[in-house]
Amino acid sequence: MGYQEFTIEGRNAVLEAYRSGKPIDKIFVLDGCQDGPVMTIKREAKKHDTPLKFVTKERLDQMSETGKHQGVIAYAAAYEYAQVEDILQAARDKDEPPFVFLLDNIEDPHNLGAIIRTANLAGAHGVIIPKNRAAGLTATVARTSAGALNYTPVAKVTNLAKTIEELKKEGMWFVCADMGGTTMYQLDLKGSIGLVIGNEGEGVGRLVKEKCDMIASIPMKGDIDSLNASVAAGVLAYEIVRQRMH
Amino acid sequence: MGYQEFTIEGRNAVLEAYRSGKPIDKIFVLDGCQDGPVMTIKREAKKHDTPLKFVTKERLDQMSETGKHQGVIAYAAAYEYAQVEDILQAARDKDEPPFVFLLDNIEDPHNLGAIIRTANLAGAHGVIIPKNRAAGLTATVARTSAGALNYTPVAKVTNLAKTIEELKKEGMWFVCADMGGTTMYQLDLKGSIGLVIGNEGEGVGRLVKEKCDMIASIPMKGDIDSLNASVAAGVLAYEIVRQRMH
Repeated sequence: MGYQEFTIEGRNAVLEAYRSGKPIDKIFVLDGCQDGPVMTIKREAKKHDTPLKFVTKERLDQMSETGKHQGVIAYAAAYEYAQVEDILQAARDKDEPPFVFLLDNIEDPHNLGAIIRTANLAGAHGVIIPKNRAAGLTATVARTSAGALNYTPVAKVTNLAKTIEELKKEGMWFVCADMGGTTMYQLDLKGSIGLVIGNEGEGVGRLVKEKCDMIASIPMKGDIDSLNASVAAGVLAYEIVRQRMH
Repeated sequence: MGYQEFTIEGRNAVLEAYRSGKPIDKIFVLDGCQDGPVMTIKREAKKHDTPLKFVTKERLDQMSETGKHQGVIAYAAAYEYAQVEDILQAARDKDEPPFVFLLDNIEDPHNLGAIIRTANLAGAHGVIIPKNRAAGLTATVARTSAGALNYTPVAKVTNLAKTIEELKKEGMWFVCADMGGTTMYQLDLKGSIGLVIGNEGEGVGRLVKEKCDMIASIPMKGDIDSLNASVAAGVLAYEIVRQRMH
């Protein structure tokens, strides 16, 4: 997929990028900013020979893709997409059965970022997204992932249903989140598992759903239809975590 | 408190408002829009004698508070805040032990909306927020709550710690989400419970935390610090749901 220039916005995101060893090409800081986190960024920039420039708020606002730069924008090489094999290798390296998130067309970059953040903390080995109209790894995704994008590999595939088929040959099981399935607490979600999360409005596509071994439902006791996609992903992921711990 | 004009934006949000019996004062629809959901909105508007006006995209964009009106904006009376007593009464009406969310300064309206949505679906009887710098019930909150704001009462209190103290006298227990507590799976979260969720950056405040009976931690297996606040709320809420079901 190759490299391209990419902005990382916000103090924590930039510091996290340094901490994880990501190469930063250049940093822009709001003129006059001297607080703790900014001083730390200045020290990191010096240590890594990163050119650092003070600019006006107008300039930062103009450069910002997220509108939430908090006075700091860094240019870095874009997050490189991983290969599905890298994700499986990450599981082997940790000597754990693979735990992978598959996102069937998550469109909102805030949801994508929050889900990658959850995948990291739930101990998943990677995230697989489709190539088509789904959100890609933009600055907003990087920011809402709160640094998780530096650690959790994200692979982009042409056909999610085909990828599921291939991973089944490696012994993986697939559970998709949808209404009308089995209550998640009653499913056996241990072992080598892929968690499939659907699109915000339409849920999991038919072709992908047909490939899944189980349909898991989150119990809904309220008046409305469905949880936010990133909340649903978190609730299901932690049911998998709970079962893996016991 | 009190009423004020309020926009509801987006097809689903407007339809949901009608469905829940919320009084709509006026509706603006993008000129030329004739699809299914818009036709349904037109029928609802006729049925409820709501004046409906076709306007240009520029006009809608100007009126929009969220930037995501999807061609439909309704003016309604603002969501009225409930009283804490209304929430307890809702539990009594359902003959259930109270299950309440308390949000210690959630600042992002998207998080607040997503948490109210989760509270509704997890079967909580209401949400309590503090008066100070926390996000209030704006159009963005209403929209991201996906209609839940029409069903789940939200009370605003002056002092969250004091409210917790008063609710303890009613026999409620309080669990707050924080790092360094007991893994949530090991806590007894049944019965009459208040779930306290902290601010996005700072977590739960000291004074509020001291009032809590338990500190629950979500197991973190990754490289970064914390889940998104609305995801964390969802994960904890559904651990409570799981324990209540068993």
